[in-house]
Amino acid sequence: MKRIAVMTSGGDAPGMNAAIRAVVRAGIAKDVEVYGIRQAYQGLLAGDMERLTSREVSGILQRGGTILQTARNEEFKTAQGQRKALRRLNEENIEGVVVIGGDGSLRGANVLSQLGIPTIGIPASIDNDIFGTDTSIGVDTALNTILDALDRLRDTATSHNRCFIIEVMGRNCGYLALTGGILGGAEVVITPERPMKMEEVAAELEAAYVKGKAHAIAIIAEGAPYKVTDLSEFLEKQQVGFEIRLTILGHTQRGGSPSAFDRLLATRMGVEAVNRLLSGESGVMVARQGRKQTTVPLEEVTSQMRAISDEYFELASLLQ
Amino acid sequence: MKRIAVMTSGGDAPGMNAAIRAVVRAGIAKDVEVYGIRQAYQGLLAGDMERLTSREVSGILQRGGTILQTARNEEFKTAQGQRKALRRLNEENIEGVVVIGGDGSLRGANVLSQLGIPTIGIPASIDNDIFGTDTSIGVDTALNTILDALDRLRDTATSHNRCFIIEVMGRNCGYLALTGGILGGAEVVITPERPMKMEEVAAELEAAYVKGKAHAIAIIAEGAPYKVTDLSEFLEKQQVGFEIRLTILGHTQRGGSPSAFDRLLATRMGVEAVNRLLSGESGVMVARQGRKQTTVPLEEVTSQMRAISDEYFELASLLQ
Amino acid sequence: MKRIAVMTSGGDAPGMNAAIRAVVRAGIAKDVEVYGIRQAYQGLLAGDMERLTSREVSGILQRGGTILQTARNEEFKTAQGQRKALRRLNEENIEGVVVIGGDGSLRGANVLSQLGIPTIGIPASIDNDIFGTDTSIGVDTALNTILDALDRLRDTATSHNRCFIIEVMGRNCGYLALTGGILGGAEVVITPERPMKMEEVAAELEAAYVKGKAHAIAIIAEGAPYKVTDLSEFLEKQQVGFEIRLTILGHTQRGGSPSAFDRLLATRMGVEAVNRLLSGESGVMVARQGRKQTTVPLEEVTSQMRAISDEYFELASLLQ
Amino acid sequence: MKRIAVMTSGGDAPGMNAAIRAVVRAGIAKDVEVYGIRQAYQGLLAGDMERLTSREVSGILQRGGTILQTARNEEFKTAQGQRKALRRLNEENIEGVVVIGGDGSLRGANVLSQLGIPTIGIPASIDNDIFGTDTSIGVDTALNTILDALDRLRDTATSHNRCFIIEVMGRNCGYLALTGGILGGAEVVITPERPMKMEEVAAELEAAYVKGKAHAIAIIAEGAPYKVTDLSEFLEKQQVGFEIRLTILGHTQRGGSPSAFDRLLATRMGVEAVNRLLSGESGVMVARQGRKQTTVPLEEVTSQMRAISDEYFELASLLQ
Repeated sequence: MKRIAVMTSGGDAPGMNAAIRAVVRAGIAKDVEVYGIRQAYQGLLAGDMERLTSREVSGILQRGGTILQTARNEEFKTAQGQRKALRRLNEENIEGVVVIGGDGSLRGANVLSQLGIPTIGIPASIDNDIFGTDTSIGVDTALNTILDALDRLRDTATSHNRCFIIEVMGRNCGYLALTGGILGGAEVVITPERPMKMEEVAAELEAAYVKGKAHAIAIIAEGAPYKVTDLSEFLEKQQVGFEIRLTILGHTQRGGSPSAFDRLLATRMGVEAVNRLLSGESGVMVARQGRKQTTVPLEEVTSQMRAISDEYFELASLLQ
Repeated sequence: MKRIAVMTSGGDAPGMNAAIRAVVRAGIAKDVEVYGIRQAYQGLLAGDMERLTSREVSGILQRGGTILQTARNEEFKTAQGQRKALRRLNEENIEGVVVIGGDGSLRGANVLSQLGIPTIGIPASIDNDIFGTDTSIGVDTALNTILDALDRLRDTATSHNRCFIIEVMGRNCGYLALTGGILGGAEVVITPERPMKMEEVAAELEAAYVKGKAHAIAIIAEGAPYKVTDLSEFLEKQQVGFEIRLTILGHTQRGGSPSAFDRLLATRMGVEAVNRLLSGESGVMVARQGRKQTTVPLEEVTSQMRAISDEYFELASLLQ
Repeated sequence: MKRIAVMTSGGDAPGMNAAIRAVVRAGIAKDVEVYGIRQAYQGLLAGDMERLTSREVSGILQRGGTILQTARNEEFKTAQGQRKALRRLNEENIEGVVVIGGDGSLRGANVLSQLGIPTIGIPASIDNDIFGTDTSIGVDTALNTILDALDRLRDTATSHNRCFIIEVMGRNCGYLALTGGILGGAEVVITPERPMKMEEVAAELEAAYVKGKAHAIAIIAEGAPYKVTDLSEFLEKQQVGFEIRLTILGHTQRGGSPSAFDRLLATRMGVEAVNRLLSGESGVMVARQGRKQTTVPLEEVTSQMRAISDEYFELASLLQ
Repeated sequence: MKRIAVMTSGGDAPGMNAAIRAVVRAGIAKDVEVYGIRQAYQGLLAGDMERLTSREVSGILQRGGTILQTARNEEFKTAQGQRKALRRLNEENIEGVVVIGGDGSLRGANVLSQLGIPTIGIPASIDNDIFGTDTSIGVDTALNTILDALDRLRDTATSHNRCFIIEVMGRNCGYLALTGGILGGAEVVITPERPMKMEEVAAELEAAYVKGKAHAIAIIAEGAPYKVTDLSEFLEKQQVGFEIRLTILGHTQRGGSPSAFDRLLATRMGVEAVNRLLSGESGVMVARQGRKQTTVPLEEVTSQMRAISDEYFELASLLQ
């Protein structure tokens, strides 16, 4: 191979830039030109790509976001769109592609591979919901952002009788809520995996109030069975004892300079993806399993969702 | 005077601990014992106070929250409650009081002064709504917390076509929203002072979308004429072009280690309050006006609200 | 005026980018083109300048460093160099210049003004040593960086019997050391203004040890009469009781995202500089005095150094 | 077992408090009383220990340092000292001990175990030099602190022609220097494992200068064969082209709020240590190997030093 391309797709995650940099520098070290495709599959269809030199990726390691941007695209889901993508890659003599992103992005990577373009995926998703790898790029940074918010809330808990409800990301996966709850100290954790009825939440908070707790924190994943604003209203009506105060972290969790852990993960995965691509692999995702760097077929990765280890639920109940 | 007391009251603000430390150390330097009253007026009525030595305030300078806690109290608003407060102070031979807090707390301080207890107020309120002083303890730290969130949102704006709505504190005062908007870069700022109709917000965002902006940020003060969740729903229905994403910072704005500015302000005000108290002043609030440390009668402070300078509104429209 | 230029010069300071952005946007709002001169006077002599549009300064507000870079230059100090600078500005039809920087940079600005080019200075220097203004761009951020380091050192003071010596910037001015010492809690502060002999430092630390202090922090300005490494060696030989541990913050103090305070200061000064330039002022520096934005003749600014207020020395001795 | 004790020993590391909290809460959950021994082996010999309840460890999870403090002690190295330690534990009916610390502390733990006191070690050392575990408590936080400093230095590299020399911790182990260099972007990395002669460092920097690099960063571990101040002087004399600027992070690396990773590691290890102790294990250290929590005999742990994986040296040379 003499020329490969890299793109970032789906919800952005801190560390994507570090992965781009690693792909570019590893490529250059192996005498391979690396092109950057802007705005993911939409840019691919538009032929919006350009060669990235070492200089272009200098100083991006520590930046949040992605210099290549991401975008949604419907056309690539059609056979016609896929043919066009193939044509664009051929026009530019791109012989292989690295796709950095979450579940949907990796599905697209699988399609590219099946179209005959050697393609390797790199898991990036702050939700930690990607199957086949212990963790994904962005999770560690997002968790640190959440802990920073929880530490601040605990500072201010010196005003008595407050219950802070805080919503964190995780549409299908309660990983951030659960680990945030363990490491930031929450009385109640509400996840899609083990949802609680609003009545149960109220009962737990009331119990904490009656027991004499000065304040309480409830952390709720985006993918809980009810909206956080509905929960907040419900709790106020129930008069659990505490005054209810709401925080929604939203997209602040996707931003910020990537942590050491995410920079290392992204760097390793970027280098590994290039190595695998050049050694002829395709249709796989680079994965971290224990201390081992390995690959998992994209077919397998996209057919299921990563489950949270029971260990976390046990830790949460043990340490509360 | 041989013995004075200090309390923190109302919504807590980063820097309250730095002010407590300054009061205690300045007192000790003048051979005055300093008592800490826990949980504000409630603790005062309960006689919940204890001598603070230099050691007790060692290592609190950098901590968020307040070691003396705060609480609400209704009883102190009654004549009977006020008599009880007086009695408690006499029981402990407290000859003067320093009250650190916001508008409501300073009203209480005024009452104490009128009851004959020499009392000095120190303005602490992240909202920056206290009349008579350029700024209050906690404002600078809260603003830095808001900018950190806005910087993160801007990082993630590499995913196209998003509009981030972010709610910040300020029930009566749009200072945090407005300066946050200027210094963090917002397309729309909604304050209680210059509210916009939801239709106007939608029109501005639509215009930004049509002009080709890749993303937009709207910052809204808690005290806007409508709830942020209602605005968010309205904008989604209006289809302004951008996808709407919501962040509510909530009480994270009250937490965190105080900034250099707040530590310095709190330290200066704490020392000044002790000096003023010992030199016989009462019924006044320590204030910062330009580079000058001065005092303002509590009567005056609590009779009106600090207005935002027009300069900020001009800067906002100039720099957008 | 239809076209002006802006440059950053001397030691860089956090907030320079915010000032550049404000100059550009304020210029555009007044229908004036703004050129950016790269690498200060060296770039000016080389004609290395380019028009800055609103887009180029979008997203730089929160970045440390300066997109225009800085550099040293000897040629501009000669009459020939100054003629060349004039010629370059005329070649590009630049009718006014804004110079953002410290003492040396402002001397250059004064030269430009005397050459007949309308020129306004903006004070930027983390040392807070610029005469005529209460504070300069970068001071607040640097102080927050120093406090972060001091807070970390205090965390780790749980290992008994350590004395941390920490060197901070300030070649001629002990402002950072002194305020860092007050707000970060140091036992000893060594400034150029009130230097201590090494023997005195040793005596103070020994006294702290004997008194039973578990640890001590000594903060020393770069411009102290001896090197921090020499002090460290001296104290080890003297066996003051504590083990000596050294931290030199160095240029980390010049980096980092600017604080809210520095963003606001830089924004205001940038806007003000453009207004003053367009209204015909030249040879002056924009200054902050109390709550007032004003100007001071560059001649005056560069003829003396800002002195630290005695208030700080008093606070330091009061609060230790 | 009905009563166990916990201590922190050696150089402190962020996350020690999180480990203490986990030991206490896991103990309580199993109906075991947990005593805290203050100041490590010195406190053990002095009988300085006290019961820790859930309340005492509430709110310490996010704090740097260790609430139990650490200290050096020579007496425990003698047979007489060890007998005294045994006696103290018997006096208080302590049936098992958890020791949190680095290499030296774990040697002490091994002694306790050999004396017949069931003892489990938990690895805590920012240097990442403890054999038998993938990582130790504190490494991740220290690395993030180093990256923050490197990011700041890179911000300020807009002033041309500077070479920043930065010293990081690691007496015997270059892990922090090497990973800091990879993830923070350094031109030269000097470790105890692969030391470079000063002449080689000068040659590399000169080459970078000649190649046209605007600035350079050299990162050096504490345990390099020469002092960083000597290197700095040498490079200045050699006139490598860049001006040399020095930063020594020192003990700031041991402080700060622990990262998410360190909080999780410490929490897991604390819980595991209690489980192992109660199930009858002794003389082992809790270890993380891949995704597995396991134990390693203290004899083995203390007989050798963890080596850095070659992968890191390869990454460093690949990405520079």
